[in-house]
Amino acid sequence: MIAALVNGVSGDSIFVADRSVHYGDGVFETVAIRDGQLELWPQHVSRLRKGCERLGFAAPDCGLLAREAIQLSGNHQRAVLKIIISRGGGGRGYRPPEKPTPSRILALYSWPEWPDEYYSQGIRVRICNTRLGRNPQLAGIKHLNRLEQVLARSEWDDPAIAEGLMLDTEGRLVEGTMSNLFMVCNGVLLTPDLSHCGVAGIMREKVMEIARQRGIRCEIGRFVPSELEMAEELFLTNSIIGIWPVRRTDNGDYSAPGKITSILQKDIITGPLT
Amino acid sequence: MIAALVNGVSGDSIFVADRSVHYGDGVFETVAIRDGQLELWPQHVSRLRKGCERLGFAAPDCGLLAREAIQLSGNHQRAVLKIIISRGGGGRGYRPPEKPTPSRILALYSWPEWPDEYYSQGIRVRICNTRLGRNPQLAGIKHLNRLEQVLARSEWDDPAIAEGLMLDTEGRLVEGTMSNLFMVCNGVLLTPDLSHCGVAGIMREKVMEIARQRGIRCEIGRFVPSELEMAEELFLTNSIIGIWPVRRTDNGDYSAPGKITSILQKDIITGPLT
Repeated sequence: MIAALVNGVSGDSIFVADRSVHYGDGVFETVAIRDGQLELWPQHVSRLRKGCERLGFAAPDCGLLAREAIQLSGNHQRAVLKIIISRGGGGRGYRPPEKPTPSRILALYSWPEWPDEYYSQGIRVRICNTRLGRNPQLAGIKHLNRLEQVLARSEWDDPAIAEGLMLDTEGRLVEGTMSNLFMVCNGVLLTPDLSHCGVAGIMREKVMEIARQRGIRCEIGRFVPSELEMAEELFLTNSIIGIWPVRRTDNGDYSAPGKITSILQKDIITGPLT
Repeated sequence: MIAALVNGVSGDSIFVADRSVHYGDGVFETVAIRDGQLELWPQHVSRLRKGCERLGFAAPDCGLLAREAIQLSGNHQRAVLKIIISRGGGGRGYRPPEKPTPSRILALYSWPEWPDEYYSQGIRVRICNTRLGRNPQLAGIKHLNRLEQVLARSEWDDPAIAEGLMLDTEGRLVEGTMSNLFMVCNGVLLTPDLSHCGVAGIMREKVMEIARQRGIRCEIGRFVPSELEMAEELFLTNSIIGIWPVRRTDNGDYSAPGKITSILQKDIITGPLT
């Protein structure tokens, strides 16, 4: 962590009674800072607001968040900004306070150094044993209850494996531990439905938007792992990595980047620092 | 909150990079302090250890925890001690550090003032709309991912309703938002199976143990809400409340406390301060 702002004040600690600590009662965003700009900022703020709304409290003012984000990122050209919004302090017990005062944690991290090959030759992924529980009430939003992702990510330490795919408890493909999944089958772009679990990624939305503009058919559906084998191309997305083509899974190899993946990569600000 | 110890030091703040804040990556216990004693301490420590083990990190030393618990509770005769153990600090990203240094938060709260009638005449409960997602990997332990309980508890503010019952996403009865559920049917004590979701309560275990000692048959099973109507008695348990008989649900009334509930209440240190 390079620096943090907690409720607008420079510091590295939070009140121990905060509901993020006790219940994971909040949401977060991970924003790419590229060329000194907060990338896809309106989309991140919009998802943050939707998340807070789903949890039943008002998100902090957009202008305030933007000012604090700019203050913290300062003159960093390339960095990662994590924003955590919790319901704030509270007494003991699950019941939310009637008039919560949400907490704001903005933390700045250095840009992760991934190999150039991740973009140019693709990554290797595994299928995780840890499953995602299904609950439509929490699906889609980027909330702070992330034990399933932690357990999934702790399943491997082989540095040759860049990401793990997760299934839900019914055996459907959902997403990566920190990314969304796309498949290309017969030239059609497919991505798993997230109405029961998973995080509706900002980059996932962006990729679907660009695909449609390019005349690439795009469908959201329910898929089992065996369908991976029928895909011509696979790739993963998130706001920081952009697009990572997949060259190998537990069950097969793929040309990486594939034809459609390459088209989308060109349109997404992504890849290593040039 | 009366006072807190954070990693052994008196204070009320925690490092903002703690994995409890970011992921709910930890477990907790809520211990009753009665007559200056930490009630059911070995059981709480044992569940804490099991929880940490399930999450893949070593729990802090038992002796250290006991010393800190005694230090914090001081000469309080009746209070609530909440213990949070997280995996500790970490970089950005779900991957746990190879050698985590778990954080210890011990927080002391005043004893909640419930009406005497909750014990002598029973409580009213509702059935919540918020469901519990099913994931055997997280079931049973008292982890920090508690958004489902927060959402369930925010469904009502009628002070006449003391607790809400929760179903899983398949419609099975699981538990209360902060308690475990027992039914008495044809003289047999029944409580929901917790292998897919729910918290395996210390008081639930204690009640089953006492029931067996008293020759009351006790079964763990899978139940749907309509089975509540066939019960002769209902009650809820947790470490702080002990046993609360239920006198009314959305679907029916019960004699409260019923015959078996009364027997168990007499054996459990419970009820208002006398």
